Amino acid sequence: MSPEIARLGHVALETPDLDESLAFFGDTVGLEVVERTEGTAYLRAVEEWDHHSLSLTEADESGIDHIGWQTEEPEHVAAFAETFEDRGMDVTWVEAGAEAGQGGAIRFEVPNGHRFELYGEMAKPDAPAERRSRLKNRQYDPTDNGPVAPNRIDHLQIWDGDALQCAEWIQDELGYQVQEYYDLADGSRWGTFLSACGVKIDLAIVQSENEDDDAAVHHVAYEVDSANDLFEAHNVMNENRVPVDGIGQHGISRGEFMYARDPASGHRIEFNTGSYLTLDPHWEPVAWEENDISDGDDHQWIGGIDSLKRVTY
Amino acid sequence: MSPEIARLGHVALETPDLDESLAFFGDTVGLEVVERTEGTAYLRAVEEWDHHSLSLTEADESGIDHIGWQTEEPEHVAAFAETFEDRGMDVTWVEAGAEAGQGGAIRFEVPNGHRFELYGEMAKPDAPAERRSRLKNRQYDPTDNGPVAPNRIDHLQIWDGDALQCAEWIQDELGYQVQEYYDLADGSRWGTFLSACGVKIDLAIVQSENEDDDAAVHHVAYEVDSANDLFEAHNVMNENRVPVDGIGQHGISRGEFMYARDPASGHRIEFNTGSYLTLDPHWEPVAWEENDISDGDDHQWIGGIDSLKRVTY
Amino acid sequence: MSPEIARLGHVALETPDLDESLAFFGDTVGLEVVERTEGTAYLRAVEEWDHHSLSLTEADESGIDHIGWQTEEPEHVAAFAETFEDRGMDVTWVEAGAEAGQGGAIRFEVPNGHRFELYGEMAKPDAPAERRSRLKNRQYDPTDNGPVAPNRIDHLQIWDGDALQCAEWIQDELGYQVQEYYDLADGSRWGTFLSACGVKIDLAIVQSENEDDDAAVHHVAYEVDSANDLFEAHNVMNENRVPVDGIGQHGISRGEFMYARDPASGHRIEFNTGSYLTLDPHWEPVAWEENDISDGDDHQWIGGIDSLKRVTY
Amino acid sequence: MSPEIARLGHVALETPDLDESLAFFGDTVGLEVVERTEGTAYLRAVEEWDHHSLSLTEADESGIDHIGWQTEEPEHVAAFAETFEDRGMDVTWVEAGAEAGQGGAIRFEVPNGHRFELYGEMAKPDAPAERRSRLKNRQYDPTDNGPVAPNRIDHLQIWDGDALQCAEWIQDELGYQVQEYYDLADGSRWGTFLSACGVKIDLAIVQSENEDDDAAVHHVAYEVDSANDLFEAHNVMNENRVPVDGIGQHGISRGEFMYARDPASGHRIEFNTGSYLTLDPHWEPVAWEENDISDGDDHQWIGGIDSLKRVTY
Repeated sequence: MSPEIARLGHVALETPDLDESLAFFGDTVGLEVVERTEGTAYLRAVEEWDHHSLSLTEADESGIDHIGWQTEEPEHVAAFAETFEDRGMDVTWVEAGAEAGQGGAIRFEVPNGHRFELYGEMAKPDAPAERRSRLKNRQYDPTDNGPVAPNRIDHLQIWDGDALQCAEWIQDELGYQVQEYYDLADGSRWGTFLSACGVKIDLAIVQSENEDDDAAVHHVAYEVDSANDLFEAHNVMNENRVPVDGIGQHGISRGEFMYARDPASGHRIEFNTGSYLTLDPHWEPVAWEENDISDGDDHQWIGGIDSLKRVTY
Repeated sequence: MSPEIARLGHVALETPDLDESLAFFGDTVGLEVVERTEGTAYLRAVEEWDHHSLSLTEADESGIDHIGWQTEEPEHVAAFAETFEDRGMDVTWVEAGAEAGQGGAIRFEVPNGHRFELYGEMAKPDAPAERRSRLKNRQYDPTDNGPVAPNRIDHLQIWDGDALQCAEWIQDELGYQVQEYYDLADGSRWGTFLSACGVKIDLAIVQSENEDDDAAVHHVAYEVDSANDLFEAHNVMNENRVPVDGIGQHGISRGEFMYARDPASGHRIEFNTGSYLTLDPHWEPVAWEENDISDGDDHQWIGGIDSLKRVTY
Repeated sequence: MSPEIARLGHVALETPDLDESLAFFGDTVGLEVVERTEGTAYLRAVEEWDHHSLSLTEADESGIDHIGWQTEEPEHVAAFAETFEDRGMDVTWVEAGAEAGQGGAIRFEVPNGHRFELYGEMAKPDAPAERRSRLKNRQYDPTDNGPVAPNRIDHLQIWDGDALQCAEWIQDELGYQVQEYYDLADGSRWGTFLSACGVKIDLAIVQSENEDDDAAVHHVAYEVDSANDLFEAHNVMNENRVPVDGIGQHGISRGEFMYARDPASGHRIEFNTGSYLTLDPHWEPVAWEENDISDGDDHQWIGGIDSLKRVTY
Repeated sequence: MSPEIARLGHVALETPDLDESLAFFGDTVGLEVVERTEGTAYLRAVEEWDHHSLSLTEADESGIDHIGWQTEEPEHVAAFAETFEDRGMDVTWVEAGAEAGQGGAIRFEVPNGHRFELYGEMAKPDAPAERRSRLKNRQYDPTDNGPVAPNRIDHLQIWDGDALQCAEWIQDELGYQVQEYYDLADGSRWGTFLSACGVKIDLAIVQSENEDDDAAVHHVAYEVDSANDLFEAHNVMNENRVPVDGIGQHGISRGEFMYARDPASGHRIEFNTGSYLTLDPHWEPVAWEENDISDGDDHQWIGGIDSLKRVTY
């Protein structure tokens, strides 16, 4: 049986100032700091059970260390490793515990330079008693995390000099399903919106302006409850002097969004709500063409968020 | 020129446990404690400029000390006093500062036992620097007050053994405008919904089950931004083990609500949103009759909130 | 490979007055009528692609005809049929097209009397041009369906005289995953909250007051965008003289809800928002005990909605 | 006793295509058409009682005919007229009924070219029976007006070559109260935010880029219930191919907004929510300076909405 990937797990970011980045992602955004080791902090959202969906490591400059995906079963990690090695790819094993809370994992590069990690097991630590929700179906009482308190990691958007090639490799080798895609008037693919979990978009791969651009992460998105929360998040950012990149609704995915960036690292977070589930076992990708939505119709869906401000690996 | 009342200012409540009541109204509800003197704490909401809209005084048992209303001009206080004394009413002067932040005031009893206070001047203290909003048009950064953070005091609902007599006195002597009223099938007045400020309901006077019932306060209402906030408040109460009395929409006033009670004192707060403004200089009262809205249509508009649980003076 | 069920597809209801029930589910609730044949109407929500998630058939009295589930692959229908027949169960084949838009299907009884249907294929008809959304990732422009316009079917709640037996059969034979369950103080199982799709609750099975109660459906739930929409739906019901059964938040599933019933048939619909996804491939069921949430904490989570008002098969 | 103005009443707009403008303001926005005469349509919002808050008249090109304000008492109209004539201003009397539903009125020019109308009486026609709300405190059932259904007119923003002079005249001669103002770094006044009703901003006067710019209206704002409704309105505009000018939150007034323009006339509407009441009888204007909020903090508060796209008288 083929190994499978179950879902987006976490993103490992590098920041030149860990304390300031924690002030942003922890205090301002409202994520929970689960563990802090020498040089790295691990965070999760209030409705997450797994050890972390975000890690922040102090480094000389901002960057992406890797993007972590959980396999359907623990033994699928080795199965993927074997396949990749058979093709001559470089696969690095990460011992259990090297990344806090995580079982044995592999790391490798997806074309054209995106560093992926696959792991099968992740600890699910209890929230501290004073932070525990009274509801048994969530870990944290979210009412102490400010007015926003994102629920869970939702998706990543990455940019690539050959976005189509990158997306096709991920479809073919990792089995992600295409939910939507967008073609420019010249027939080229601008973006592919993929699902590892099979029921919603969790990875968007977008074409860089130049073929030579380095592989980069444009944003990591966390889900909030409603459009009202986007305005609450806007308010939180303004009160904390964090520049807001925009608020609006995407055509693709129908997600409503608010963007802000960590002042210390420049990593961008999207607060996201309103996207849909594809429970249909036979989902057919939604095909967009350039003129389906013009700038005038929904000026923020493309170009509205400064695409040059993204962080490379 | 006749003296006029400008608006509802505050309600002065008594509690058998000031610390616990502060834990409720301050930490759980999200009001700001502006000042605490021996035995009394003064609170205001994040969008209020005046010194307090709620005071809590430790006493042997729960009770209402008085309901405070601001006059249009400071000199109107004495003008009201003169009128009331001419009619042989008991009028008590309260010196400036006796109630923290407040100028000279009078207290007197409205039929049938409601203690009103009129004052003309109230301090507008600055929020502490670390709590000050970056926006110059509000005092506090509300994003530190939990997910709800009520904006401002909205209205009071009082119960009376002869609610019609009480309402008519307040119309005639204090000049409040009737916004809506509700008559039972037998022609008797069940409730009168009045406005001191002239643009929205700020005082509801409801008929008690028995004519001999003591004058009482059913709830004090604070405004929140939206129906979403009512669910947020519900969540906050559940996480803090505070019983919720109900959530829904009133027919009268069209206000959407969530009710909870201070565990220490039994005083009920309504989180309120969605009511309307009457900027019309010639507003005609809305006349409801008993069958206009039946229980089945809007089961919570009357009787849905336990009316016996109210606090007397 | 074992046959699998992919998701909840639809519920087939009977009503004594089809026109009136269509006025409710179509005009008031805001579902779309996709097709109407002699005696049966087929409806779907604005974000659904499949032919129907609700059918209404005129009958002498209100009732449930069947609950439809889609298999992962079309050929799984026959595989399930074979297994059931091997155990001596009655399995009825339904020809393709007998239920509009649907491929070949089987019907059978789950203990203790719930009529399930399994099908593998369902048509995905285009919305009429004048109703088509400009967004390619949804069929209908929802802004013509009133202020609520539910997105998609979310879950069913059924009641049973031996709810535990019913739930265990469904787990064992159909492979549904348990997301949460609730045990009474005497150790008996009150409710089991299952997932056919694997990522969210889509079937709740609750213990009837009496063991002899007939198998029944308590409600069918459709998802809306936010808590604000619950109040919008409340408003729509009041304006259309449809009694509202309650509005609030469940402890189990954390879903926020508003209930109303079709005046013609008594079938209850829940407008639902705010529940969570379990993308975790190793989800451990959430175990509730009777005292985890008391009536005072969240009075509507159990018993708040009149459980006697449910419709049998 | 000095004559007083009670509130903003309506705005009278000219459009080159009345039918298309009605398709926008009526069908898309969700205002109600109360009356249509030869060449003019009168509209009001679902929670308004007065005959109209917007009129649309077919003309050669888009323009503003006048802005209507209601006086506190009918006889104040003549009192204002007398004062203005004493100063040598041109005052034109408009007979009762010449503007549908309206009593006798005067029109005159405010510096530097804004056409104001003052009237004391306005009819309050009943909604048609089939459109009447079941709630006696509103005219229309809003659930038939799409997902947005603005409640009432909220404010106007006008632009002027000498905005300070214009604002001061309105303060001095018409008695409007200043709620907030904004000064540029060079000490000049960029905008004054005034209140005729005394409890909220209903007129904003903003400095044009050039002193010679004609007097113009930038937008008319209607209030909606919540930030969620702004996204609903965004959705409605996209589905109806109406370009959206932006969505966000203002610093001044704290109002959350969504802007769109009538495709036929170019008149801009703001959907607005979240602004505050100033019930304080001694409100002190909020004084902003240019650096209090920078572009980066809240990029949409100034300049974010294309100020050149405004319509002149």
